[in-house]
Amino acid sequence: MPADPLANSYERLRVSAIADLKSAAVESELAMLCELSLDFVRRYAELADLISNVPGKSYAMARLKTGARSSRPINKALFDPSISHSEIAKVLSGKVAAVKDPRLDQLLYTIAISYCLAVDLVSVGNKKSPGTFFEILVGHLAARRFKANPARQIAIPSLDIENTLPTDFIFDLGPTKAKIHMPVKISTRERVIQAWAHQRVLEGMHGAGRFRGILVILTETNKQKETSVVEVCLPGQWAAYQMYIAPMHRVYYFDLPKRYEPLRDKYPHIQIWPFSRFFREYEQLQTPGP
Amino acid sequence: MPADPLANSYERLRVSAIADLKSAAVESELAMLCELSLDFVRRYAELADLISNVPGKSYAMARLKTGARSSRPINKALFDPSISHSEIAKVLSGKVAAVKDPRLDQLLYTIAISYCLAVDLVSVGNKKSPGTFFEILVGHLAARRFKANPARQIAIPSLDIENTLPTDFIFDLGPTKAKIHMPVKISTRERVIQAWAHQRVLEGMHGAGRFRGILVILTETNKQKETSVVEVCLPGQWAAYQMYIAPMHRVYYFDLPKRYEPLRDKYPHIQIWPFSRFFREYEQLQTPGP
Repeated sequence: MPADPLANSYERLRVSAIADLKSAAVESELAMLCELSLDFVRRYAELADLISNVPGKSYAMARLKTGARSSRPINKALFDPSISHSEIAKVLSGKVAAVKDPRLDQLLYTIAISYCLAVDLVSVGNKKSPGTFFEILVGHLAARRFKANPARQIAIPSLDIENTLPTDFIFDLGPTKAKIHMPVKISTRERVIQAWAHQRVLEGMHGAGRFRGILVILTETNKQKETSVVEVCLPGQWAAYQMYIAPMHRVYYFDLPKRYEPLRDKYPHIQIWPFSRFFREYEQLQTPGP
Repeated sequence: MPADPLANSYERLRVSAIADLKSAAVESELAMLCELSLDFVRRYAELADLISNVPGKSYAMARLKTGARSSRPINKALFDPSISHSEIAKVLSGKVAAVKDPRLDQLLYTIAISYCLAVDLVSVGNKKSPGTFFEILVGHLAARRFKANPARQIAIPSLDIENTLPTDFIFDLGPTKAKIHMPVKISTRERVIQAWAHQRVLEGMHGAGRFRGILVILTETNKQKETSVVEVCLPGQWAAYQMYIAPMHRVYYFDLPKRYEPLRDKYPHIQIWPFSRFFREYEQLQTPGP
């Protein structure tokens, strides 16, 4: 199994992202790693259907032709392993005005899950690397739209204490625009409360409404016994966090869980949408005020 | 390796704890599992020193005489595998007024880590069981002092939503006393923010000061490369959580990290103490008011 090209490509991506997340170098490394991963999946694996316990969604997994390993669940309607080089380039550069939402959702999901599938199948030994890949992908897309690289820590203002807090992405877009707090997660489960808690710390330090919380998540699917798929959703808890910890301005999913959609339509009206919507409203997200 | 008696004893403890956490049945199952575990460690393992990167503390690990497996780090000053049946009984029943603090710290630490060590050495296959054991131990000790079993969920009060939130231990001691919110963790790392966030949700739902947040943790040690020990501490982040999320009334450790002690002495003055102190102040903890 040729794991080396994948590991090398990932390492180049990681190094470029540290240097300049919104750079052309990151764009080209992301494209290369995505294509390498999809090529790997097409060449060495085949899709095997899973029993979906999610109404209205079909899932499969990629399985090595040798049968030795299988991947996380794949949303069949959103996965298109034959996406073209030029489509990937369009998404990464944000030139998606002419791409319709359903196709944009497919392109985004396929790019985001590509490397995760390859790692599932070869196990390059770095369990954290799919999370880092996804963070770099979302960070790159956001940084280019916002025309600014994010910080990963913030100074704690205090009368006599000097201290910094490590954070998820913080985009400081200058004094005339909203600031953006963007946690990025492959999936969340019970750990999601961390995103609301960090939003709370930012509001406590810098005032309510100063930071827009924008939580970006790939999926909440969970494969059970190699045969079926569930979505792990905690809508009641999410409502409590939104009411009592701090408001999250948007939650974007690459594969939006069905049970979270109704949260938009009743108090506290959490705005949970497919990530494609980010490309339609990123200017509005920067506009300060309620 | 005789793993079955351990697994059976653990299972009996788990079932009794679900039925009535403060019961005599849980006391006797806790004592039995603790003695079984210490006996196992004495019989099949030996202590091997680790290099301590924690100033003023010495650590070892238990290692099977066959060399096949080794345990998490053990604080040598706090571990006494020869503690007696009657000492264990004293601690579990809370009759510790005549036991001096240093010995009480030793008894508590040895009881708390006993089953964890045995599981490290036999790997009964249930990775969560040390966490559950520790939760039952602390829950039992607290429930007996408070004369009330804790709940594990709380209703979310709202105008038109009915919802419950799963929580850590919640002790409702009646209208004339403080209510207690007690998260219990083997170790915390970056996940500790969850405890402050849940405290925030409780304050948001029921008013500031209604619930006393009491966080109980075994240790923050981490074994590196089978040879050395560090304590993973984030004092600056803890101060920010205490300032901006919600106040935690007490943090008790069975093996108190050195770097957290100074947090008591400067703003926001987080009260971090050895767990033995709980037995000296549990009545005061229930007294409402600032």
